[in-house]
Amino acid sequence: MALFFIVLSAECEVCAGVISLDFSFEVEATDPGCGARAGRLRLPHGEVETPVFIPVGTQASVKALTGDDLCAIGAQIILSNAYHLYLRPGVEVIAQAGGLHRFMGWDRPLLTDSGGFQVFSLASLNEVTEEGVAFQSHIDGSSHFLTPEKSVDVQTAIGADIIMCFDECTTYPATHEAAAESMRRTLAWAARCKARCSEQSEESHQALFGIVQGSTYEDLRAESAAVLADIGFPGYAIGGVSVGEGKEEMLAAIEWSAPLLPEERPRYLMGVGPPEDMLEGIERGIDMFDCVMPTRNARNGCLFTSTGRLNIKNRRFCTDFGPLDPACACPVCRGTYTRAYLSHLYRAGEILALRLNTLHNLFFMLELVANARQAIVAGRFPEFKRTFLERFSA
Amino acid sequence: MALFFIVLSAECEVCAGVISLDFSFEVEATDPGCGARAGRLRLPHGEVETPVFIPVGTQASVKALTGDDLCAIGAQIILSNAYHLYLRPGVEVIAQAGGLHRFMGWDRPLLTDSGGFQVFSLASLNEVTEEGVAFQSHIDGSSHFLTPEKSVDVQTAIGADIIMCFDECTTYPATHEAAAESMRRTLAWAARCKARCSEQSEESHQALFGIVQGSTYEDLRAESAAVLADIGFPGYAIGGVSVGEGKEEMLAAIEWSAPLLPEERPRYLMGVGPPEDMLEGIERGIDMFDCVMPTRNARNGCLFTSTGRLNIKNRRFCTDFGPLDPACACPVCRGTYTRAYLSHLYRAGEILALRLNTLHNLFFMLELVANARQAIVAGRFPEFKRTFLERFSA
Repeated sequence: MALFFIVLSAECEVCAGVISLDFSFEVEATDPGCGARAGRLRLPHGEVETPVFIPVGTQASVKALTGDDLCAIGAQIILSNAYHLYLRPGVEVIAQAGGLHRFMGWDRPLLTDSGGFQVFSLASLNEVTEEGVAFQSHIDGSSHFLTPEKSVDVQTAIGADIIMCFDECTTYPATHEAAAESMRRTLAWAARCKARCSEQSEESHQALFGIVQGSTYEDLRAESAAVLADIGFPGYAIGGVSVGEGKEEMLAAIEWSAPLLPEERPRYLMGVGPPEDMLEGIERGIDMFDCVMPTRNARNGCLFTSTGRLNIKNRRFCTDFGPLDPACACPVCRGTYTRAYLSHLYRAGEILALRLNTLHNLFFMLELVANARQAIVAGRFPEFKRTFLERFSA
Repeated sequence: MALFFIVLSAECEVCAGVISLDFSFEVEATDPGCGARAGRLRLPHGEVETPVFIPVGTQASVKALTGDDLCAIGAQIILSNAYHLYLRPGVEVIAQAGGLHRFMGWDRPLLTDSGGFQVFSLASLNEVTEEGVAFQSHIDGSSHFLTPEKSVDVQTAIGADIIMCFDECTTYPATHEAAAESMRRTLAWAARCKARCSEQSEESHQALFGIVQGSTYEDLRAESAAVLADIGFPGYAIGGVSVGEGKEEMLAAIEWSAPLLPEERPRYLMGVGPPEDMLEGIERGIDMFDCVMPTRNARNGCLFTSTGRLNIKNRRFCTDFGPLDPACACPVCRGTYTRAYLSHLYRAGEILALRLNTLHNLFFMLELVANARQAIVAGRFPEFKRTFLERFSA
């Protein structure tokens, strides 16, 4: 008896590689003790096992690392940013290169953020209207106008597997009135993004995710999630978190939104986070995470180990000839590098410090979600979380 | 019939690895059309085919690269600097680590410069006497006193395969009188370095090289070379070049010194150089070169290609989707990286730009000397040099 698997495939219109058309998300296991779930995302450029941590490559580069480095530490998907790429090198350059996959030499899945968050956090805002956002580039002060449609067009040209709706990231703290107005604008924009994307979906095969907003208000988060679910997206993100609110408020934002999102769709908590918060998110049914913190911390000398955070700048590491984390299997800890050498590299301002630290911190995050997934499949996530946190917070 | 090869080996006193005691240099071929020679240097931590270019890892790191990167592009030996390591992380730290090989995780041959050049170029000098040099650290202003003996002690603790005599690098330009005084001081220091090294040679197995000085004066260069040859060293360097003098004067310094140095010993032209100068040196019988220029240029966006230098910052590269150098087999040119992507990384200030550029430029230099060696063995170095320069300077 022969078994035949039929996989729909085609040539990617952007990068010209062979891609799967079979976008899907499947929940493979749910932990009996909590909301945690292990899933599998099928994307044009490959499969992604969830929960997943997505390393951030804002400007078409995960800082200090090559694609080979990222593959070696098990990165399944990386994130880049439409706002940054739109400004530099420009969409035309990326389109001419054959899309972001080819431009940066990365053939696994990619996700682009819409630029909404950056327009509101990095650029000088001129005006926000229902139509879109007028802003000035943080690089050269040049004037630009982004609309939901334009953001989709930009992201289509960039060609990531997953693209995000153009949203207004509500500032924190916000009054109920301001949060409501901002959230409803994001909803209107989400519908326009979906419409624009539908016009192009024949060619693009990209999955557009909606983004829940609503700040710290339960009714607004619930309204946002429910309306987005009505519009219907292949995946849903929870945005407007990790913007200065407390941990309680972040967890509340998840708890108010997640139950209203379709169970069979992936849920993405944007910009989170520290290992502790990621585990809280997983416990509440979040499937995807991204955060600049592990890579940014690495460049500042703050490193994760199984027994907690460590600052490599600390004087005691100058003569510590043990590995960074004896329990870690990353290329830095398994290699010839000692804490003393990493400390020297950092103190001497050597570029290699940034690279090795980044490699280690990212491995830590990727390993953490991989282990969390195993625990979910084995039905023992709460125990895994407790054990991890006991050591990590000791 | 069985052939037995006996190789003297022992445990390295510094790094505890198995090392060969069989320090030797063998000239394997001499080009009939010029002074170029192909040789083989046998060092405690491995063999080095000459002519060789030695990448510079001043502070125990070739900037932006790992040891694996260096092996992948064919680096046979790298250089580090006793002055820098003495100040940071300090000799005690390196000694505790088990020597520089273990500290930085590099198991191929190493060479350390004595610190003479840096004391005179980087530090604030307090006083230079026959005894030694009082100076202040360029890092924290702390006061230090280096003597020839102390420099040898520092280099012994660091444990490189080849160490250098502590020399006074004569400033350029210098009067005949000043150059003579400085050169003769360097000769006296060389004898003291050899004496100190001999006391320790039972354990250290390090090869101490003498350094020819004498500025731009034929009689001084000749005197320096002849006296050093009389003292007797396993290898000889030509120093005080690449300090601001013209190319003619640099070549003259070689021509005045090299014929007076023992033919069966390696000759090392310190701090040189650009590809063109390196070929001139090889033609005149130089076996070893080091220079920060390929790595420093890389970090400034100036890249070598088979058809000449290229500045990746140039606007035309923003939309150039070809490889950096189609004729190059380095990991960057053979990989997925285009000029447009390298240009974007550089403009965006991405750390990866520094790493990829460095990898390419070093590969270029290593490949150049490897090809030069092949040409010497084939007896066609002058033709190789002409052909290379015709393309490179076009």
